[in-house]
Amino acid sequence: MNAQNELHNLEVGYDVPAIPGMDEADIQTPCLIVDLDALEKNIRTMGDYAKQMGVRHRVHGKMHKSVDIALLQEKLGESCGVCCQKVSEAEVFARGGIKDVLVSNQVRDPAKIDRMARLPKLGARTICCVDDIENVAELSAAAQKHGTQIECLVEIDCGAGRCGVAAGQPVVDIAQAIDAAPGLKFAGIQAYQGAMQHLQNYNERKEKVDIAIEMVARSVEMLRAVGLECDIVGGGGTGSYYFEGASGVYNELQCGSYAFMDADYQTIHDENGERISEFENSLFILTSIMSHAKADKAICDAGLKAQSVDSGLPYVFGRDDVEYIKCSDEHGVISDPNGALKVNQKIRLVPGHCDPTCNVHDYYVGVRNGKVETLWPVSARGKAY
Amino acid sequence: MNAQNELHNLEVGYDVPAIPGMDEADIQTPCLIVDLDALEKNIRTMGDYAKQMGVRHRVHGKMHKSVDIALLQEKLGESCGVCCQKVSEAEVFARGGIKDVLVSNQVRDPAKIDRMARLPKLGARTICCVDDIENVAELSAAAQKHGTQIECLVEIDCGAGRCGVAAGQPVVDIAQAIDAAPGLKFAGIQAYQGAMQHLQNYNERKEKVDIAIEMVARSVEMLRAVGLECDIVGGGGTGSYYFEGASGVYNELQCGSYAFMDADYQTIHDENGERISEFENSLFILTSIMSHAKADKAICDAGLKAQSVDSGLPYVFGRDDVEYIKCSDEHGVISDPNGALKVNQKIRLVPGHCDPTCNVHDYYVGVRNGKVETLWPVSARGKAY
Repeated sequence: MNAQNELHNLEVGYDVPAIPGMDEADIQTPCLIVDLDALEKNIRTMGDYAKQMGVRHRVHGKMHKSVDIALLQEKLGESCGVCCQKVSEAEVFARGGIKDVLVSNQVRDPAKIDRMARLPKLGARTICCVDDIENVAELSAAAQKHGTQIECLVEIDCGAGRCGVAAGQPVVDIAQAIDAAPGLKFAGIQAYQGAMQHLQNYNERKEKVDIAIEMVARSVEMLRAVGLECDIVGGGGTGSYYFEGASGVYNELQCGSYAFMDADYQTIHDENGERISEFENSLFILTSIMSHAKADKAICDAGLKAQSVDSGLPYVFGRDDVEYIKCSDEHGVISDPNGALKVNQKIRLVPGHCDPTCNVHDYYVGVRNGKVETLWPVSARGKAY
Repeated sequence: MNAQNELHNLEVGYDVPAIPGMDEADIQTPCLIVDLDALEKNIRTMGDYAKQMGVRHRVHGKMHKSVDIALLQEKLGESCGVCCQKVSEAEVFARGGIKDVLVSNQVRDPAKIDRMARLPKLGARTICCVDDIENVAELSAAAQKHGTQIECLVEIDCGAGRCGVAAGQPVVDIAQAIDAAPGLKFAGIQAYQGAMQHLQNYNERKEKVDIAIEMVARSVEMLRAVGLECDIVGGGGTGSYYFEGASGVYNELQCGSYAFMDADYQTIHDENGERISEFENSLFILTSIMSHAKADKAICDAGLKAQSVDSGLPYVFGRDDVEYIKCSDEHGVISDPNGALKVNQKIRLVPGHCDPTCNVHDYYVGVRNGKVETLWPVSARGKAY
């Protein structure tokens, strides 16, 4: 999946934003650039943390959708596998060489279930989530049809109010059904508290996670009482991993954003009220100024089609004198009261929310020391099915 | 560029959301579907309007980014060409057979200017906008280098506060520089009032457009006084085309959203305070319910990676009993107080803002009478450079 071998026929600007070896100044904008030093440091930091806490780290591939980055997380961060949200993403990761893939989501459509059941044939351990006992027979039938095994986690809604069943007996009921179903294997619990990840206050986050940990611990105990052990107790994100990691209950973290960081995650605080700073910004939208017809406003070429603004506008990296204040389809308006920016000048934006921002781009341009070192396809871009 | 001939090797779900001939019920979600009857009606309606008013219609290809739809607009709506916002989009349209392409934006990067200057070699009349006299020499040098001609519109900022110069003398200064530059041809004025398109109140919209029309009329007169005629006086969108079309000043409309319509444009009113209704919803996000673990909430598979929510959440088409109330990366939460929705049921969402929503998908699935009739690639998806 490494794009470098395929680049000889590609035209910079039309097909790709850059070619390895190029100066950073020549990259075509707007595009995603990755500071490779910062990315590698983030990956190692989280890998070290997981090792120190004695838990596995199943990296969330839904964030970057990149086979190359998932393989780097395996190599530098000793991740145990990938989780993702869609069957089509899982197919991309399995085809790209990831050997342990969890679809941390429900799979209900008959065609998708059939594709899930074929995933093990690509050489990947295949795991998905279940929150409805009726789903068990559907998954079992597909696994038997293809002669494969699907491992299943029961998903607990531990506060996000989305998918998942209540803790306790509903978990046991589904787990027992999975355990009894041919072609399936009960593998444990999925319990991701998505709704608290971005709460700025440390104690508010801790309070929410403590509730989730209690729900999960109780469910694990009830499962044990009926003879079912959880191989995987999975959850935790960039805004909470130190809670789940130290819980003694969770044994797999599922962090995504830590590798890149985004503006929204950077607003959360640690127990001392300080901004959490163990991860650096490694992902940027590189954008060029393309109009400065008004003295105090620079117009850049990165708008809504170069990012998602659901969690707020991006900020200009490393500068206090200019501010990204407005976003339309193809333009960003940057307040530039001192007229500091010039036409064709390139600046780095830190996106408000990395996941849906990555999903609009076809490539990551990996940079180091002012040079383009690599070009990685956003391998599962648009894989929403 | 028609995808149907290339489909024999593609797998439904992994590569494409559907195959022509398939029942609508078998389409893999989430994906974009286009009601072909409604799309064709919208295209004809706008084409008829332009003809009746004696103006040309240069359709905005930035909205759909589809060569197939641009060709349909030519055939059914007698559009005179396409406008778009990026050089890479222009290349896609020119390579796809569109013979008259306007980049309704500034082109400043040296590599992009070089690509612009090569566009005429693909057989397309090539036009771009200028709002800085320094840009004239750059464009001229590139056109001379490639032995081509670039036509230039001077962009007026008529209220959007983005790119563009002030009306009057600044327009004349740039126009004269263009007229004098070898390889360039002065072609007229670009004046799109983007900031008023979505104002709900008819009179507020009219007031803003009247100001723009006055600015443009004055500039056209001043140009005429120095011997420069405007072949193109372009602007107007789905929220304003009846103003520019009837102005006697503009001669080219540049509508995009009318072909699909979106939730945001549907909130604007006509002079009687009624919702404007000449265009139908033809674009939908098809989504499936994939969890209903809570009695009053259905979770669907279309979240932030299947749409842009910058202009608000989507609404559920044709239903008053359920409401899309929350959006996360891969999920939508639908309030379903009566438990009306079932797992695997498919519903149509009307996106809040069509342009950036289309930009996250690879295909349009064209449907008619419950069957998939065609599959159109979003040809310029991700072409942000």
